[in-house]
Amino acid sequence: MYEMHFAVPMAGAVLNTINTRLDAKAVVAILRHSEAKLFFVDYQYVRLASDALQLVADSGAPVPLVAVIDDIDTPTGVRLGELEYEGLVARGDPAVELPLLTDEWDAVTLNYTSGTTSAPKGVVYSHRGAFLSTTSLLLSWGVSTEPVYLWTLPMFHCNGWTFTWGMAARGGVNVCIRDARAADIYCAIARHGVTHLCCAPVVFNILLEGDAATKLASPVSVLTGGAPPPAALLESVERIGFRVTHAYGLTEATGPALACEWRNQWDSLPLQERARLKARQGVRVLSLADADVKNADSMASVPRDGKTVGEIVLRGSSVMKGYLNNSEANDSAFRGEWFLTGDVGVVHADGYIEIKDRSKDVIISGGENICSKEVEEVLFRHPAVSDAAVVAMPHPHWGETPCAFVVAKDKAAGVCEDDVLAFCRKHMSRFMVPKKVVVYDALPRNALGKVEKVKLRDEARKLAPPLPALKTKGKTTNATTVGGRRSEHPVAHVMAISRL
Amino acid sequence: MYEMHFAVPMAGAVLNTINTRLDAKAVVAILRHSEAKLFFVDYQYVRLASDALQLVADSGAPVPLVAVIDDIDTPTGVRLGELEYEGLVARGDPAVELPLLTDEWDAVTLNYTSGTTSAPKGVVYSHRGAFLSTTSLLLSWGVSTEPVYLWTLPMFHCNGWTFTWGMAARGGVNVCIRDARAADIYCAIARHGVTHLCCAPVVFNILLEGDAATKLASPVSVLTGGAPPPAALLESVERIGFRVTHAYGLTEATGPALACEWRNQWDSLPLQERARLKARQGVRVLSLADADVKNADSMASVPRDGKTVGEIVLRGSSVMKGYLNNSEANDSAFRGEWFLTGDVGVVHADGYIEIKDRSKDVIISGGENICSKEVEEVLFRHPAVSDAAVVAMPHPHWGETPCAFVVAKDKAAGVCEDDVLAFCRKHMSRFMVPKKVVVYDALPRNALGKVEKVKLRDEARKLAPPLPALKTKGKTTNATTVGGRRSEHPVAHVMAISRL
Repeated sequence: MYEMHFAVPMAGAVLNTINTRLDAKAVVAILRHSEAKLFFVDYQYVRLASDALQLVADSGAPVPLVAVIDDIDTPTGVRLGELEYEGLVARGDPAVELPLLTDEWDAVTLNYTSGTTSAPKGVVYSHRGAFLSTTSLLLSWGVSTEPVYLWTLPMFHCNGWTFTWGMAARGGVNVCIRDARAADIYCAIARHGVTHLCCAPVVFNILLEGDAATKLASPVSVLTGGAPPPAALLESVERIGFRVTHAYGLTEATGPALACEWRNQWDSLPLQERARLKARQGVRVLSLADADVKNADSMASVPRDGKTVGEIVLRGSSVMKGYLNNSEANDSAFRGEWFLTGDVGVVHADGYIEIKDRSKDVIISGGENICSKEVEEVLFRHPAVSDAAVVAMPHPHWGETPCAFVVAKDKAAGVCEDDVLAFCRKHMSRFMVPKKVVVYDALPRNALGKVEKVKLRDEARKLAPPLPALKTKGKTTNATTVGGRRSEHPVAHVMAISRL
Repeated sequence: MYEMHFAVPMAGAVLNTINTRLDAKAVVAILRHSEAKLFFVDYQYVRLASDALQLVADSGAPVPLVAVIDDIDTPTGVRLGELEYEGLVARGDPAVELPLLTDEWDAVTLNYTSGTTSAPKGVVYSHRGAFLSTTSLLLSWGVSTEPVYLWTLPMFHCNGWTFTWGMAARGGVNVCIRDARAADIYCAIARHGVTHLCCAPVVFNILLEGDAATKLASPVSVLTGGAPPPAALLESVERIGFRVTHAYGLTEATGPALACEWRNQWDSLPLQERARLKARQGVRVLSLADADVKNADSMASVPRDGKTVGEIVLRGSSVMKGYLNNSEANDSAFRGEWFLTGDVGVVHADGYIEIKDRSKDVIISGGENICSKEVEEVLFRHPAVSDAAVVAMPHPHWGETPCAFVVAKDKAAGVCEDDVLAFCRKHMSRFMVPKKVVVYDALPRNALGKVEKVKLRDEARKLAPPLPALKTKGKTTNATTVGGRRSEHPVAHVMAISRL
């Protein structure tokens, strides 16, 4: 996938990296909507790809050419489709004159934020936007020459927050692991002298797991997003030797759009105060012309008082070109030059932006965005369900997971939770499946008939599993204790809104 | 001048910073050619500006509005023209809505590389080019947040190699000193905790002067250009605690275009080898689409063999828009998209470019470019001179100075060197005045009648003053000894070609 980030654009084509956690139906929706011509399949995903291709063929839609990528160290011999990657590369002509880009606004990549609805949202990046975002994220994170970068963040997330290209720009080494397991991470850090990695704060839990979590030989810079790092986690990982930078972004902004640029004068503050400052989403990266918090009606900027809320809006070349073939979504995403993030925040006196309320209908589970509407659509299709609503439930490991509230068609017969879960597992990607199903007689609705999700979120918080024990200062501390801090920035609240 | 880098573009105007080492006539040529509307004058340059304005008025050309900038700490009360800077600022309206830039290719600044000839060369930068160059130079130099930057490099040189804007982009502190004197530099470093500075290698001599040159409390990053840092100087300043990065550029490329990006694996090499690698001009900064060495006739790239010479050519958004109102110079500077630097170089196997031969007719003296043709034009106007040629002469402090070869109109009467020098001082900026005038019976000319400057350069090298004693390892070492190195990269040779 790393090579594809260069080969595909250089061939004049558009790269569409597909989330490996999706199920076959979601993959089909993406293949069809993107009208993919060539489909590269890693050997570990041959089964998933094969199922998806069968469904494409069954639907009568054009089936793309397929090239399988075998394991380069220990080839498995598995094949799918007409082509095999290394053989394809060997047939290339190194002397070929590649066409120069004629329009910098041409599309370079396509990233789906949602794939299973009738109108998938495929975010299109331009070469220009990708270049600008790449260089300014390197600057915001302070990546100097010859970094050694560990791929804990999947490359299918906003093209690895642009660090696919960024590592090449800094002459970096790319260290790839199949799974973000503690043992693999620490082994890679020690073996390759890793200097940088990106991850959602959910990975901090992995970094602190068991015996693997030992003091690093030299510091590793971590760029995190998807949620502000909670104080307790921050303290624990920083003590081991990770230096955490917090950024905020979303697929539509080509990854991080704001970075909480650290000021040296904050170094001497107490941990809680440092964590509070670091939990803020920050200031715009240089590739954005502007980031602001505005009153969505008047589009007037809110005062820098840390109190007046408004919508976080972004403007600049690194904002997506738009959603592919989805004029409805495009119309509602932009107001003039401004992209509306849907996130509600404030601006502090020092210009740093902080999110105060969640974007509607997005649940972030282990760094993956889940659209609650998509889960609801599946629930409505269950024969025993008459009404359904899905909200985020705090989760000790995943940050958030979907929690479903359903109403039975037949009150007497009711609805079986296991039955609903089995139905979900069959009809959606695994990571989207609710961890909890609650049966109500009726969903709480306001006078206009709209489901009062605020009430459901309160309920979900009560149902959430307890927070885990965290190792702090060598002894075991219950995170709910140090998490007095968390009532201010409850995980349930923040994990869902600072999405990447 | 720092404030002007923001205020002028934000007002929708174009900033033209004038070299303070120019004389009144050169300033007049710039004011007239640029058609300046508003002329800001620092209190130390009131005399020079006043002379220039009188000459503009005498010529019948429109006289710009004048605003004097007094010393902010200890006002002198000196006034010139209608306006005074602080008063002007006080009259500003902080609530004014500034116009947004409508075309990123609009001019942002104008920088004259030559001002006294009939066709001055005013290099025009675009907003786009300045932005890209700024961000990519911050990356190339590895400037992280909150740098403390000492202005040893004048801001009138390519807008301070873009670090005027760059320091704002990194939240930096700007430390300004009036003159780059050793005592002032070390005082500023100690007082403000300077982390970064830019300078020509000529300033290294200043850094090593007398008692001031003491071990730094913490390292200071130095970006140098205008010439590769010679091994002896490099060793001496790095021992004190300066970390030197070598870059190559020219006004037309918005400052540095190549940077000799250091590879960690070179750290363990012996000094001479490190100096040899660091003396190379390097690889393109990211704002350039391409930098190459090409056969100027066929425009084919030379092989990466470190031997085949060609012309260094640049292509990309940070190359100037062009010379203002000078179509002749524009026609010869570009071939299609490629800007021709006039410098001759090779490409090494690792892709690093190294200059091998000088750009014609440019003498670099203390970091200032002198066009030999401009000096010759003045000499030709001397009543006793019938023929004249000017070449670079190595100089222990300035790197190079102009050396004039003249022929007397009246062989019997001859030409007096002092008389010629006095004439030069009257008709050109002080830094352009030759340090040596040699009287010949006839200039060496080839069959086509062209002056054989190669022969004159050889002669000038013989006439050059001896290289100075350098303090190394606490004891005094004669630089000509360590300068065995220098025969490979003689100062006379390199100072003139790696120009900034």
